[in-house]
This record gives sequence, C-alpha cells and structure tokens, in this order.
Amino acid sequence: MHIAVLAGDGIGQEIMVEALRVLDALGLPDLRLDHADVGGVAYKNHGHPLPPETLELVMAADAVLFGAVGDPECDDLERHLRPEQAVLGLRKEMQTFANLRPAKAFAGLENLSALKPDIAGAINLLIFRELTGDIYFGEKGQRTTDAGLREGYDIMAYDEEEISRIAHIAFNAAQGRRKKLCSVDKANVLQTSVLWRAVVNEVAADYPDVELSHMYVDNAAMQLVRNPGQFDVMLTGNIFGDILSDQASMCVGSIGLLASASLGTGTRGLYEPIHGSAPDIAGQGIANPSAMILSAAMMLRHSFDMEEKASQIERAVADVLQQGILGHDLGGRASTCEIGDAVVARLA
Amino acid sequence: MHIAVLAGDGIGQEIMVEALRVLDALGLPDLRLDHADVGGVAYKNHGHPLPPETLELVMAADAVLFGAVGDPECDDLERHLRPEQAVLGLRKEMQTFANLRPAKAFAGLENLSALKPDIAGAINLLIFRELTGDIYFGEKGQRTTDAGLREGYDIMAYDEEEISRIAHIAFNAAQGRRKKLCSVDKANVLQTSVLWRAVVNEVAADYPDVELSHMYVDNAAMQLVRNPGQFDVMLTGNIFGDILSDQASMCVGSIGLLASASLGTGTRGLYEPIHGSAPDIAGQGIANPSAMILSAAMMLRHSFDMEEKASQIERAVADVLQQGILGHDLGGRASTCEIGDAVVARLA
Ligand SMILES: CC(C)[C@H](C(=O)O)[C@@H](O)C(=O)O
Ligand SMILES: CC(C)[C@H](C(=O)O)[C@@H](O)C(=O)O
Repeated sequence: MHIAVLAGDGIGQEIMVEALRVLDALGLPDLRLDHADVGGVAYKNHGHPLPPETLELVMAADAVLFGAVGDPECDDLERHLRPEQAVLGLRKEMQTFANLRPAKAFAGLENLSALKPDIAGAINLLIFRELTGDIYFGEKGQRTTDAGLREGYDIMAYDEEEISRIAHIAFNAAQGRRKKLCSVDKANVLQTSVLWRAVVNEVAADYPDVELSHMYVDNAAMQLVRNPGQFDVMLTGNIFGDILSDQASMCVGSIGLLASASLGTGTRGLYEPIHGSAPDIAGQGIANPSAMILSAAMMLRHSFDMEEKASQIERAVADVLQQGILGHDLGGRASTCEIGDAVVARLA
Repeated sequence: MHIAVLAGDGIGQEIMVEALRVLDALGLPDLRLDHADVGGVAYKNHGHPLPPETLELVMAADAVLFGAVGDPECDDLERHLRPEQAVLGLRKEMQTFANLRPAKAFAGLENLSALKPDIAGAINLLIFRELTGDIYFGEKGQRTTDAGLREGYDIMAYDEEEISRIAHIAFNAAQGRRKKLCSVDKANVLQTSVLWRAVVNEVAADYPDVELSHMYVDNAAMQLVRNPGQFDVMLTGNIFGDILSDQASMCVGSIGLLASASLGTGTRGLYEPIHGSAPDIAGQGIANPSAMILSAAMMLRHSFDMEEKASQIERAVADVLQQGILGHDLGGRASTCEIGDAVVARLA
C-alpha cells in the first residue's frame, strides 16, 4: 500500500497527522507513506503549487491522501500559481473523473444544520460529480468582440463516453443503496444537457432495478432545501455538481465531518475532506480531523478494497461523536489531537 | 397604460383573473388590457408557444403581465415548440436583461420554510440575475468528435457591456437598500467570470457608498443555506442566477408568494410569479394568486413609476396573510377568489 500524503496548507497539516495515526492504529501490512508538498506551501518551497516531484509521487502511488490547499498569502499570485490550480491539475493528471461526496446526517448532530432537525436528519445522499470535463476544462479565454468590447468565454462540452463512464459508476452505487438515481441537468436550455440526459437514459437500460429520474438543476437546488431526504444517489456534471454538492454538504450542517473521494478507471484515487484549509484557525490545534480521518476510510474502501477496516473507522468516528467528544466547530472543546486519540482508542 | 396580459397555462389563467381585479380596484386611469395566448395554450390555438400576434402585442405594450407556462401535454413536442421556449423568446425579443427577484420572509410565515424559523425569518434579499446572455444564448449544438463520439456543447460568454449594464442597475438598487452588494461568479475557474469580476469592480467605483463583495457560486449556494440573512443585493449571471434565485426562493419557504420583474433599458418590463403553471391543481380554484398580484405591484413600481400604488398592494397582501387568510399552499383553506376578494377589500 503506497500512499502519497499531501497535507497541503493551513489545517491540512494538523488533521493529516491524526489520519495517519488512525491508519497506523489499524496495523496495515506494507504501509508505505511518502509525503510531498502541494498548494501554497509547495509554491513557497518549489515555486509551483503542484511541483513535478509531487506529481511524480502521486502517479507512482496507489492512492493520495490530500489535506487542504488555500493560503491568503497566495491570493495575489498569478492565476496559474494559485493553490487551487493544484487541485485542478491533480484531477486532470490522475484522470479522476468521478467525485463521490456522501452527505449523510450524523445522529445527534441534526441540530447543527440550518435546516429543521427532522429535515436535516433525513439526509442520506451520495453525489457523483463528473470531475474532469464540462466547462472546467473546455477552451476558455478573453477576446475582443467585433464591436471592440472585452469578452470572456468558456466552452461547456461533454462527449458520450465521459457521460457514460460516470453514469455507470453512479448506477452501480445506487444498486448497493436505495436503488434511486436522480440525474441533474439543464436539458431545457443546454445542448450539453440534452446529450447528458440521452446517454444517462441509455446507460439506465443496464440497471433495470434502479429507479431513474431527471431533474433540472434549478429545481434540484430547491429540492435540496425543501426535502433533501428524497435523494439517494445524485448524478451531475462538473459545474452543477460543484454547486449542488457544496449545498448538500451545508444542508447536513457539519461540514467539518464530510469526506470525499475522486476516482478514475483503476483503483487509484484521491481522498480529501470537503472543508478547506481554514487559515484562521491553523496551527492552534483546534481543527476537527474527523473529515480527514473519514477520507482515509474512503481510501481503504475504494482503493484497497478494505470494506471492513473502512467501516471500523467510520463506526469509531460516529461513536466518538455520539459520546459527545466534539470539536470546536461543533460547539465542543475537544482538540485535534484529543479527537484523534479518541478514534484511535476505539480501534484498539 | 397599455398592458399585454399573457395568462398562459394551468393556474396562470385563474391567478391572472385576481391580479386584474386588483388593478381594477385601484381605479387606474387609461388602463388598457390586451389579452394574448402564450405557452401550451398558444401552441394549441396557433401552433407556436409564442405566436407572432402575441409578440406583436408585447412589443407594442408598456408592460407585460405573465402568468405561467408549462403543460404536460406538450412534453413530447419538439424542443422549439415547448412552452418554455416562449419564456426564452420573450426575454430575447424584449431584451429584458435584468431579472429582479425579491426574496423576503413574510412575517408570521417563517415556519413554512425548511430552514429554522429564525434563519428563514432574516431573509431579505434582492437578486439581480442577468437574463439575455451567458450560456443560455451562446452558440450550442451537437457534433461528432474526432474519435467519432457524440458531443454536446454550449458556449458561455459575456462582454463588458452586458455585465456593466446589469451591474449598474444592481448597484443602484443597493443604494436604496442596505448598501451591500454580493457579486457571484466562478472566477477561480471560468474566464467569463474573470471578466465579470473585473467589470463589476470597475462599475463599483461609481457607487462608493455600496459595500461590494465577491463570492464563488459554490460558496454562495452554501451561504444561502447557512445564513441567507447576510445578503442584501446579489448580482449574478444567467445560469448561476437561475440556480441561486430558485434556491433563495425556496429558503423563504412560501414560493407561492414570490414575484419577479424582467427589465430592459426602457421602462417596459415583464412581470410574473416565480412559481409554475401547477397543472396538478389547475382549474380547481385553489391556486394562490398572491405572487401574481405582487407581480402586478412590481409592474406599477418599475414600468409606471407608481410606487405608492405598488406599496398599497403589497401592504394589502401582507395584511391578508397576517389575518390568517391563507391559501392551500400555506396550509389554509382560502380559495383563489377569496384571496383576491380579501386583497381587493383592503384596497377599497
Ligand atoms: C477550488 C475549486 C477549483 C474547486 C472546484 O470548483 O472544483 C472546489 O470548489 C471544489 O469543489 O473542489
Ligand atoms: C424555463 C426555463 C428556461 C427558465 C430558465 O432557466 O431561465 C426558468 O427556469 C426560469 O428561471 O425562468
């Protein structure tokens, strides 16, 4: 098990320490951890947010544990040197076209959501966001119009293969869950969405046991507020998924607890918490490492087929929460290290 | 005052009746109302959702009152014949580039929101969505890639004039409110957004008393859940505004009460409720006409400079709600006609 460890900026460093302690506690065989810089810290040390040596390590590893990137000191850098470019670069190089974001209420924490507790408590959805196509990676630029005006443009596009490969993954996942898949698009306006919908319908033929529905993105944004519990698996393109997955996470109400996986065709994946680098609290030892620890669990599940160990970690984290050992983000007083300790203790 | 009345499909017909009764009750001078078909009913009667005679009337009128379009019987029509194409066609022909969506909690109805009442009750925001540009109207189509695959594509683009004209309107409105404007984009990924942000910053120089902030669209979707009360005026492009304005409306919790205006350079505008044609309850006399009535109020304000009369209607609607005369959508039993009666009674 060769893991590239990219802790990144801000609280990324502190929370990664706890995730690695948890992996250590599992006594995994042949665990090889290699650390490398990414984001603002990589820019400072190597002049680029995604240096060649980091990329080389990533491509050689079986999986990537990723903390967070983002550093206010990098705000004035040219675009291609900013920390978030490392994120886009990694997605492109690793060809991780499927981003998985489970959004599930944690028992006892429904009250943290801005939604009413009974509505928030019913959330149990898994979003599949396409991650290497769409308007993110199409041709883009600035030009001058015939009238001499500045114009910015970006091309949105999907081909049928890009759509069908993520659709298959999402349908597969739905079969192992409540067998409902909602595909989100804007097919009443966008031609990209017209093809998206057609291909999803074609793929659906292979999964007759899964109930497929289509929803316009504006309606999906409403339904995620009104009744997020109606969704099981949601399938989206890159830009709509960017918006809806963040919205869904916020509906859960405890963003510090949510993990994500980015997968390609093989078993290699990148695993990261959905929260950011939180520079305002970095270095104080109060960041909640739970989402990072749960990302490590997703890694064991998806890259190493260790379902048992993954569940073990997830149960330990849930147990810690239920015992009231809460981080500052959840209104508690437990430190980064204390939360790590508590999870490790439950794995012993 | 020459008004084109396009009631459209489903409940559009019933709620329009009440809005016209309200206008009548105000005893407006020289009121001329001309009715025309739009949407599914127009397709059935004239073979097109936006027939030439309707468009002619619209272009000759001072303002358009629009009910709703959408008819399940039209679902299988070719794309260009579907009811929603009338909406896009009207926007393009009328050049209504600014869509105004006030989202404000109604006193006493905070409980209808899926958000906690204290969070929903603090909502008082006005969204300006650009309506005639962006990925909606850029080149789009289906093609075959070099690899022989089907591909769908849509071009997103804005030029500086399209951005600055709506920005000016939004900044102007902010000056008359709490003097805060949040511009939403995805400038960390999209070149269209890079220009959007630059032009909004340029326009901001003319409004030094307005506090400007920029927010990425994914974060905006989160903040609208977490704490929508933080927003005063929000400025967005067409597609992001489509998503966020619907989300914001749902946060308020009483979508049947929200109105919208679509404005161009002159005073001519199109006014419509944000809800749809609700075919499931059409013809039963139970649709809530409040949003349609409030749309008529917006018309008086924006197209006819009748602030006093507009406020009068708005106070009457608020008063009716506060007296507990609630439609079926709000858990009450008042019929379409009874709600219209109650509003008219308060205008006498
Ligand atoms: C940082 C940014 C480029 C990125 C995205 O838009 O994909 C982020 O919002 C995310 O969702 O991971
Ligand atoms: C019907 C559809 C084309 C339209 C849009 O996307 O603009 C609708 O969602 C709206 O917001 O008015």
